[in-house]
Amino acid sequence: MAHTLYDFMRWEHMINVGVVGYGTIGKRVADAVILQEDMKLVGVTGRTYNYRLEIAASRGIDIYSIETPSQLKDQGIKVKGNLKDLLKKADIIVDCSPKPCGKENIDKYYKPAGVKAILQGGEKNDAAELSFVAQCNYRDAINKDYVRVVSCNTTGMCRTLHALDKAFGVKKARATLIRRGGDPHAVTRGPINAIVPSFELPSHHGPDVRTVLYDMEVFTTAVIVPTTMMHMHNMSVVLKKQPSVKEVVELFKKTPRVRVIKANHKLGSTAEVIELARDLGYKRGDMMDICVWEEGIGLYDGELFFPQAVHQESDVIPENIDAIRAMMGFKDQEKSIMLTNISLGI
Amino acid sequence: MAHTLYDFMRWEHMINVGVVGYGTIGKRVADAVILQEDMKLVGVTGRTYNYRLEIAASRGIDIYSIETPSQLKDQGIKVKGNLKDLLKKADIIVDCSPKPCGKENIDKYYKPAGVKAILQGGEKNDAAELSFVAQCNYRDAINKDYVRVVSCNTTGMCRTLHALDKAFGVKKARATLIRRGGDPHAVTRGPINAIVPSFELPSHHGPDVRTVLYDMEVFTTAVIVPTTMMHMHNMSVVLKKQPSVKEVVELFKKTPRVRVIKANHKLGSTAEVIELARDLGYKRGDMMDICVWEEGIGLYDGELFFPQAVHQESDVIPENIDAIRAMMGFKDQEKSIMLTNISLGI
Repeated sequence: MAHTLYDFMRWEHMINVGVVGYGTIGKRVADAVILQEDMKLVGVTGRTYNYRLEIAASRGIDIYSIETPSQLKDQGIKVKGNLKDLLKKADIIVDCSPKPCGKENIDKYYKPAGVKAILQGGEKNDAAELSFVAQCNYRDAINKDYVRVVSCNTTGMCRTLHALDKAFGVKKARATLIRRGGDPHAVTRGPINAIVPSFELPSHHGPDVRTVLYDMEVFTTAVIVPTTMMHMHNMSVVLKKQPSVKEVVELFKKTPRVRVIKANHKLGSTAEVIELARDLGYKRGDMMDICVWEEGIGLYDGELFFPQAVHQESDVIPENIDAIRAMMGFKDQEKSIMLTNISLGI
Repeated sequence: MAHTLYDFMRWEHMINVGVVGYGTIGKRVADAVILQEDMKLVGVTGRTYNYRLEIAASRGIDIYSIETPSQLKDQGIKVKGNLKDLLKKADIIVDCSPKPCGKENIDKYYKPAGVKAILQGGEKNDAAELSFVAQCNYRDAINKDYVRVVSCNTTGMCRTLHALDKAFGVKKARATLIRRGGDPHAVTRGPINAIVPSFELPSHHGPDVRTVLYDMEVFTTAVIVPTTMMHMHNMSVVLKKQPSVKEVVELFKKTPRVRVIKANHKLGSTAEVIELARDLGYKRGDMMDICVWEEGIGLYDGELFFPQAVHQESDVIPENIDAIRAMMGFKDQEKSIMLTNISLGI
């Protein structure tokens, strides 16, 4: 590998990555892996025929079936083999199958084959050795065999709360999550015209943040609303030190994968933020940064308030890439984040 | 008046009520006035022709124009006169015109005519002598000339926070308001597919609560979402005394115009709550109670959490009726609330 950025990596070989489950997250992880100079996408799996696999095949991505290839073959997709065949070629699998298949796949396939695996945030915390957000606990993931990249919402809160905690100390954090009803393609999801509160107290997001930020005092409530574009978090954080609003803005501006945006730049809603991502040319209109509105940052009686938007389909993609590097033994957290960000245009 | 319930009232005459502005609130106030045994609807005003006025006319409600009747007459609506004519017949006007017309109307029409007036929550606090929620400060409104019934959201928070404050003492209250984008008929409102944060800190609702609950320590943030059915408030309240969840449930069950509902009774969202209102036979499917989900009430680390739903079109209607009585000198707060509730089926 002659590329300067990668000289320090001294890989003896490229990291061979397989992707199991080629849905909302899987197809994005596969695309991101292809963009890494130190990784090779050795294949993806499909369970049933769908247009996504057809696009993958047309781009030269090797398709594997989970067990028997017949259903895929009937539809004219060329199948290279089954999951066990894919495991022979892969150093690591990014498992993006629906919960709780990830955990089941570890026991059934990955452990017997001696292949490392990353699970997604739908799986339970104890399904893997570690729950992961790159800028929070990359080092803990080095050389691990099974790591869980946490959900989009948890990733979003971890990014901003971790930065605040390092800079000012977080005494306690409270958040109301206003969650999108379904992804843009999800035609059978709801609600159409309702607000649906969560009756978990706290909603699972708060405890999930603590799987990454181990001592964070955080409590969350949640509602679901009829939109497909991003989750919103109305955050309220009591800090140990009292920064100015300007200091908080500066902190977020230099925090990786956090973007400070301005409502008065015609970016006053989640829909406008997605339009920004589309204008920036990001594939699928993805916004992998957590977006914090500068005008929404305020201090009142020792509490910091700010609204942040989380693109549910894509914010975890760079985390998956960094998790691959950490688990394969690449020790430099900041360089991995930088390489991932450059490759994805973040 | 022979009706027992009204015997104690000893009115020398019925209260003559006029309604100015016959939109979302005005048409409901007019209907509610008609249902009161101690009130007479002497007329409503319209500015331009619309189907609502046609329905009103067909029901025998007298229609007045604001100034010149010509535009209404052209469309075949029988106009009894202009606003000045209506003022000659009314003891009190409920002004439901769009802000800031209410305040302007006081100076231009009501004060010169010596007629009392109620404004709605879109008007500023200082537009009237007092901001009003019946169960909080009825007594302060007795014999006042100009009273402002606060907005739907403020009314909702005042009802539950006032009850909590009386029972347990409120140290501080925090709320995230998830606001409906527009009323069901409002075809040009948005958002269609976005979450729109508010960049006011606090949103105006927090300070507005303090116009009724004068010493309440309350801070609110808000977002707007694509639904037409009810606002949602995710409340978090630090209390001086620590009640059990059961005590909070019991408190809300006995609080006027607050309804404790259960998600597991198939009432898990705002849409289902409106379906309940429709099944109960309330006109227009209105839900005048503030609805608190029993399963959502929880205590954590000295904070009380609960979600409540507010029907933006109708929760202020009983407040307008009680304000009329208070301003006309009826001194018994509890009896007025009871009369209003019975008449409206609350």
